[in-house]
Amino acid sequence: MSDCRLCNIVSGKLAVQRVIETPWTIGCLNSLSPVCRGHSVFFTKRHVVALHDMDDREIQDITASIRKVVRAAGLDNYTVLQNNGALGGQTVFHVHFHMVPAWNEVECLHVERAARRPVDHGDFGERVRAAL
Amino acid sequence: MSDCRLCNIVSGKLAVQRVIETPWTIGCLNSLSPVCRGHSVFFTKRHVVALHDMDDREIQDITASIRKVVRAAGLDNYTVLQNNGALGGQTVFHVHFHMVPAWNEVECLHVERAARRPVDHGDFGERVRAAL
Repeated sequence: MSDCRLCNIVSGKLAVQRVIETPWTIGCLNSLSPVCRGHSVFFTKRHVVALHDMDDREIQDITASIRKVVRAAGLDNYTVLQNNGALGGQTVFHVHFHMVPAWNEVECLHVERAARRPVDHGDFGERVRAAL
Repeated sequence: MSDCRLCNIVSGKLAVQRVIETPWTIGCLNSLSPVCRGHSVFFTKRHVVALHDMDDREIQDITASIRKVVRAAGLDNYTVLQNNGALGGQTVFHVHFHMVPAWNEVECLHVERAARRPVDHGDFGERVRAAL
């Protein structure tokens, strides 16, 4: 898709610093809005919007690519973040995984852990199990 | 490991509300510190500490399990978060993936997107490519 930033990286229209490339996956340094040094983005070469749209081969390859880069970088502390949908924090609608090294308590991904209100799971579990 | 919360779920010592179970993976509702309704945690049955320690079968199965639950729940907006190492936000040292539905702008995972200081990737990319 010509208006998709990640498709433009795949086609070579947009230059980035790749860290890994396979027949299915590109991993590159995040040049748009990096959280810290080494913040990388891994995405499918095929234009797919969300995690649940990926096929098994793409999932296998992208997760293997992330793990290879983590090992090559010698990282023990890092976060993988994968956003789906506008409410889910997705801003580029081509599926991608963030890998953010955690160098120290400032240079890392900051995630708010506490709920903003009391949580009741309601019938979420029952509904999922019934639909599986 | 008897002092591992997730191993105690695997062995049945600790009761949780499962949403999915396979020979390799358990997915359950987060009862300890849920961010919002449906916040689920997926983990390997084998005691493995970090993402880069998982084997291919475990990765394939856990990501397939997450996608099945997402589809069964009819979610389009959700975030997958996977923390490694204490600096990387990991508090339970048995590899796990959070799946947090995003119901609205409050009931969702809040992630700080901006860097706290200017980011220079330095030689991260070169070092990774040299080590791959």
